[in-house]
Amino acid sequence: MTREEALALDAQDPLSALREHFTLPPGVIYLDGNSLGALPKATPARIARAVEQEWGQGLIASWNNAGWIALPRTLGDRLAPWIGARPGEVLVADSTSVNLYKVLHAALQLQQGKRKLVVSERSNFPTDNYIAQSVVRAHGGELVLVDTPEDIPPLLDERCAVLMLTHVNYRSGRMHDMALLTRWAHQAGALAVWDLAHSAGAVPVDLLGAAADFAIGCGYKYLNGGPGAPAFVWMHPRHQGQVWQPLTGWLGHAAPFEFSAEYRPAAGIQQYQCGTPPVLAMTGLDTSLDVFDEAHKLGGMAALRRKSLALTDAFIAEIDARVPTANVATPRDASLRGSQVSISLPADVDGYAVMQALIARGVIGDFRAGEPALLRFGLTPLYTRFVDVVDAVGILVDVLAAESWRAPEFQKRSAVT
Amino acid sequence: MTREEALALDAQDPLSALREHFTLPPGVIYLDGNSLGALPKATPARIARAVEQEWGQGLIASWNNAGWIALPRTLGDRLAPWIGARPGEVLVADSTSVNLYKVLHAALQLQQGKRKLVVSERSNFPTDNYIAQSVVRAHGGELVLVDTPEDIPPLLDERCAVLMLTHVNYRSGRMHDMALLTRWAHQAGALAVWDLAHSAGAVPVDLLGAAADFAIGCGYKYLNGGPGAPAFVWMHPRHQGQVWQPLTGWLGHAAPFEFSAEYRPAAGIQQYQCGTPPVLAMTGLDTSLDVFDEAHKLGGMAALRRKSLALTDAFIAEIDARVPTANVATPRDASLRGSQVSISLPADVDGYAVMQALIARGVIGDFRAGEPALLRFGLTPLYTRFVDVVDAVGILVDVLAAESWRAPEFQKRSAVT
Repeated sequence: MTREEALALDAQDPLSALREHFTLPPGVIYLDGNSLGALPKATPARIARAVEQEWGQGLIASWNNAGWIALPRTLGDRLAPWIGARPGEVLVADSTSVNLYKVLHAALQLQQGKRKLVVSERSNFPTDNYIAQSVVRAHGGELVLVDTPEDIPPLLDERCAVLMLTHVNYRSGRMHDMALLTRWAHQAGALAVWDLAHSAGAVPVDLLGAAADFAIGCGYKYLNGGPGAPAFVWMHPRHQGQVWQPLTGWLGHAAPFEFSAEYRPAAGIQQYQCGTPPVLAMTGLDTSLDVFDEAHKLGGMAALRRKSLALTDAFIAEIDARVPTANVATPRDASLRGSQVSISLPADVDGYAVMQALIARGVIGDFRAGEPALLRFGLTPLYTRFVDVVDAVGILVDVLAAESWRAPEFQKRSAVT
Repeated sequence: MTREEALALDAQDPLSALREHFTLPPGVIYLDGNSLGALPKATPARIARAVEQEWGQGLIASWNNAGWIALPRTLGDRLAPWIGARPGEVLVADSTSVNLYKVLHAALQLQQGKRKLVVSERSNFPTDNYIAQSVVRAHGGELVLVDTPEDIPPLLDERCAVLMLTHVNYRSGRMHDMALLTRWAHQAGALAVWDLAHSAGAVPVDLLGAAADFAIGCGYKYLNGGPGAPAFVWMHPRHQGQVWQPLTGWLGHAAPFEFSAEYRPAAGIQQYQCGTPPVLAMTGLDTSLDVFDEAHKLGGMAALRRKSLALTDAFIAEIDARVPTANVATPRDASLRGSQVSISLPADVDGYAVMQALIARGVIGDFRAGEPALLRFGLTPLYTRFVDVVDAVGILVDVLAAESWRAPEFQKRSAVT
């Protein structure tokens, strides 16, 4: 694809106006929205209002008057249609890890100790497997990790309590068939817990359509809620009233402002709230969901997905054509692909240093060590352009050809990669 | 005390300059900093910088370049001296409820199943008792609640695993003797877990001096971190490496950016981190700790405590002199008093409506139902003046004399009280 062809695609892109809702630094091609979403233009003023007016002037009364106390539910209701859930089913609270802890305990409890295996992938994002290790320990169970998705079906048997998967793999960008795997899990009598960290806002998700049991996900990646924005949690309505989660904080109580001594869980998803909601962080997510309202007007998730696949197709084609030494680790089959492209480079090329050299040239992706080591490029349909794809790969070609990544400054490791 | 005498006390107050660090709405006497601290003047610009520069321009690189990844520890280090801990011992993370869950599990684990009773107060803030109910259930233990502090010592025996107390009671403002109760708990072989929600930033706390085992607390009350600001957690260094907490998220791992499959807890307090820190919320707390740096220069906690007691003494004296029908529920003994004054009114006076009438007149405290129903007035030495005490009680006298609280608009209940 020539730069001119890319610009022509951008000119025809029905979603191109959405990029105008984001602040992006000049000279930067930001391809790391799968790690930290970009800043919506409306967010600074909205957070400033929350700080100066709602907190500074409204003070304690803002829990009622500014709707603070309802934020976990109102944000959940706004998010629900993007993950195939209904209003009233989703709660925004805590972190992805904490929410996984809640739902995994709940899921194992539903199995009443009769089944004790949790099945997941070794390549799952580590926090999921760490949390699962803790929860299975509490239930006297075991975490079984598979090395490839093909190894999952044989483990879905009468010993399997929970199939716990991240819908889109954080390293490869490979996407599972949620409906199929959930069906297989259910046929085996297991429950399906889905982590939507790399799905929500990026790919179509239909939790109710898949009849999934529990889901959790992240607010600061494709949802653009800001660094460390609160996460979300969903439970299928069929489990309401059947289950108890262990983080029994006061705001998950049926009547928190009665201040009664005995815990009595709220009905439905509200029982997954624990402590006081982080209002300023939630305000960021509230504002970023406004951009999704705009996306809804322009065709919603179907349109986002079309553009996402066109972007990742283009990125893969550019890599194939211009970086023949690279191996594309992300599935070429669109039905198996999230909204990122990961590539590996030959063993004699230091991928970490290549990414640092790219960043120095304004192309921001990230690097993940492992087998193979990967360069990840997140392509978010809300603000990535086709010209960004062509330019980014062009700069990668330059960096590799000139071996500029060999400069000592690009070898230096940071605390966070 | 006459208004002139109060103004004279304010003029002599060595801490009076600290009030200038806060934004307070004109015409408001804010006596609810024990529920939501006021807005520091520097916070809006600092949060705007975090949003617009660190997030908007710095994007993902700010995890390293803006120090985001270290915030849980750097804020913990800043907070440490105010609670009698050392740098490296305190972590800022999650909510008070979630942190209590972590430390209570850890404490029961240290008892190795040999002791299973958790002793607390029925009048403890409900979330503490709710979380304890969940944790004792997981450990096959029991939560024993006492009705008065005098009932605690007899329960400190060979069956007691943990004495879990909130240092300053949220209703009465009564303060426990942390050192004495911790000593008694230890003499009985129990561990002491302290909730500092109404203590941190308000009263002297010496965790190491008391040899306490674990502590948690809140960032949005006397610490002024903003609505739903993250909480904190502390563990005595003697327990480092001895114990495991169940919320085993990736940032509590010894080497999170190795992305290894097996959980391996970080050394010390770092293992109490779970998910990704809420950067914007933490920035609020970071800024509010600057005000405490100023307070440190003016005499630190000793000076804050002197002023706090002078304020609460004055409030109690004004109530005694001018509202003889009210009963002061907060201890008159200064050594037993936090930084609030709670009063009850005769049974034929609707305390809730009185508080609404006070708020309509610009005096913001809050109301807590129960036996007795209480009107709470938080007096924070950082921004409350003596003239506020005199004026607030004067307005209470007016409201009671004119029975203006009987107006129908003041009977209406809000969701959050």
